[in-house]
Amino acid sequence: MYEMSKKGFGITAVVTADGALAGVISDGDLRRLLQKDKDIVSKTAGDGLKPDPVTIAAGELASAALQVMEQRKITSLFSVDGSNRLEGIIHLHDLWGLELF
Amino acid sequence: MYEMSKKGFGITAVVTADGALAGVISDGDLRRLLQKDKDIVSKTAGDGLKPDPVTIAAGELASAALQVMEQRKITSLFSVDGSNRLEGIIHLHDLWGLELF
Repeated sequence: MYEMSKKGFGITAVVTADGALAGVISDGDLRRLLQKDKDIVSKTAGDGLKPDPVTIAAGELASAALQVMEQRKITSLFSVDGSNRLEGIIHLHDLWGLELF
Repeated sequence: MYEMSKKGFGITAVVTADGALAGVISDGDLRRLLQKDKDIVSKTAGDGLKPDPVTIAAGELASAALQVMEQRKITSLFSVDGSNRLEGIIHLHDLWGLELF
């Protein structure tokens, strides 16, 4: 929760000890976890993570990122390198205002 | 939380007894409330609501709704009538796929 609040995206990546992307936790995941068990504060990031998040390679065009968001009806995408190591996040709000097409 | 999960928007409106829009609660508001007090289950909707949400009149064009979302960096808009009574919600995902421009 601290990470989610600090970054302000409403979603955070969960990585393994070697930096590989294990999954993501969104504000919605947190809500669903809380509905199942109100003692959410004792839960670990692993308890709430959604595996296999949608990712994009950092070299892809911003317009491709927007198309993926539209198709999957999501607003954030994580970028990973060839070894599934987390590189960063791109949020729809970063794309708005760019002249993509 | 039940309303938010049922509708699937990650946000819900809070209305007064006479149906006027009092505010909204988003998944992010829920997270921030939970960070302040882990005993969130005992809180009321009024404890977490954000007053004065961004609204749009139902008669406005869909393209206007999209522009408001881009400017305010939000993904949902509530529509109200002239008496501030809640009419509905429009989500960015509803707008994607429409040929707006």
